[in-house]
Amino acid sequence: MNIVSDPRVMQREAEKLRLAGKRLAVVPTMGALHEGHCTLLREARKHADCVIVTVFVNPAQFGEGEDFARYPRDLPADTARAAEAGADLLFSPDAAAMYGDGYQTFVTVEQVAKPLEGALRPIHFRGVATVVAKLFHLTKPHVAVFGQKDAQQVVVISRMVKDLDFDCELIIVPTVRESDGLARSSRNVYLTPAQRKEAPVLYASLKGAADAVANGERSAAPLTAAIRAAITSRTSGTIDYVSVADGDTLRELAALEHGQHILVSLAVKFGTTRLIDNIPLTVA
Amino acid sequence: MNIVSDPRVMQREAEKLRLAGKRLAVVPTMGALHEGHCTLLREARKHADCVIVTVFVNPAQFGEGEDFARYPRDLPADTARAAEAGADLLFSPDAAAMYGDGYQTFVTVEQVAKPLEGALRPIHFRGVATVVAKLFHLTKPHVAVFGQKDAQQVVVISRMVKDLDFDCELIIVPTVRESDGLARSSRNVYLTPAQRKEAPVLYASLKGAADAVANGERSAAPLTAAIRAAITSRTSGTIDYVSVADGDTLRELAALEHGQHILVSLAVKFGTTRLIDNIPLTVA
Repeated sequence: MNIVSDPRVMQREAEKLRLAGKRLAVVPTMGALHEGHCTLLREARKHADCVIVTVFVNPAQFGEGEDFARYPRDLPADTARAAEAGADLLFSPDAAAMYGDGYQTFVTVEQVAKPLEGALRPIHFRGVATVVAKLFHLTKPHVAVFGQKDAQQVVVISRMVKDLDFDCELIIVPTVRESDGLARSSRNVYLTPAQRKEAPVLYASLKGAADAVANGERSAAPLTAAIRAAITSRTSGTIDYVSVADGDTLRELAALEHGQHILVSLAVKFGTTRLIDNIPLTVA
Repeated sequence: MNIVSDPRVMQREAEKLRLAGKRLAVVPTMGALHEGHCTLLREARKHADCVIVTVFVNPAQFGEGEDFARYPRDLPADTARAAEAGADLLFSPDAAAMYGDGYQTFVTVEQVAKPLEGALRPIHFRGVATVVAKLFHLTKPHVAVFGQKDAQQVVVISRMVKDLDFDCELIIVPTVRESDGLARSSRNVYLTPAQRKEAPVLYASLKGAADAVANGERSAAPLTAAIRAAITSRTSGTIDYVSVADGDTLRELAALEHGQHILVSLAVKFGTTRLIDNIPLTVA
């Protein structure tokens, strides 16, 4: 596996590969690679001759008081994992190379970045959209692979790709879960053993909502109420939000319509560790 | 000359040309092509196998009350001019294809977009940066050619290209002028004969400032005072601004330093017609 840290070297390499007729896939990550990321890399492999994984803890997407400084970093472990999962190239720039002196350009996706995670993290998706635009320019992918785990990120990036005419196909991979249902996340390592035991309730409550919709429920209120009740009664977590929203616009819904794509999502804090999860549904 | 209006067709064509090893240049315009644009096209020719001219009156860069509706449009004339100046492909999308339903993504360049034109036109450069990002994604240029006439636009786009890692070289072409010094502009057609006679004072006053700097003037205040005095005494125009700024950051300067790149610029209104002009200098 080729390892590149210089953005200009990355860009030249990507251009060379494209000119040679290779199909390129990129999997943008912040490192701390786990089985979820490896699943993205294996999916990328199916769509490309060359799989590029980017490892960059992006300062622009962390607000003040968030966990930028303590976000887990372990490049040797990431390198081993990425190679094992079949990546051909690992691009790991440093922050100074990505955001140099006088840096001042940002990509903003407006409405879909505002609710849910955006309501609590006002600059988060600006940082995400900006770094993904930069990474797309540097790695020149035909295909980019993201996980459904970060559902709003998927909506924001899909909107950016469409609006800014990026010539890149997005592939969204279903959330990879532990055997008890907990979504894989680099932040799970922060959970205490007691919190770790409670955390599967998040997914169980989302599945409860999905089952209710499958059984004919067409109002959002009982769905969010049931999720809230499950989390409140069965965990020590504090709910940030529970949402039933349109899957494309992320507008909160009251009633569900036949054929509609919806996103049921939540964020819950266990102590200082914040977990998110979601289920995308089509109303049958 | 190939004429394309569909963005997806443009993008496929650009990709095909790149894969064939062609070097592509783009010259983004809002149409109403005049000798200034033709100079850009001829410059582009020197750097590329395929010269793409885009003709798009971009609604996103016009504020309320600006001249979007009355901006001159004449595609048949533009087509003839572009072909004559050696363009290989004219890309002329319509606004609905560029800004479809639910459009909500914008590229913002911060500090350098705020003074001068940006102070009077708060969303202008957001619109410019956004449409140039889109046009770069659609036309996939190796080289893009802009005119020095829109000096702040050059600074904004240079900053965007650097910050967002666009793999595109910018070439800036000196302002093309009438024989009496007036900068060529699509908006010159709005001038009355009397205004047209006064308008060359703008460039003459800028040249006066350049001469003063060449002769050792190192303070900005006398430069702007002399420009203001010339325009006020010799024209019926109303001054929007006269500026002596750092050429990269566009911060207004008090003192000039040896070796510094500076931009002397102005905007003057003749009735409802607003003219801009500038001279970039290196302090000798």
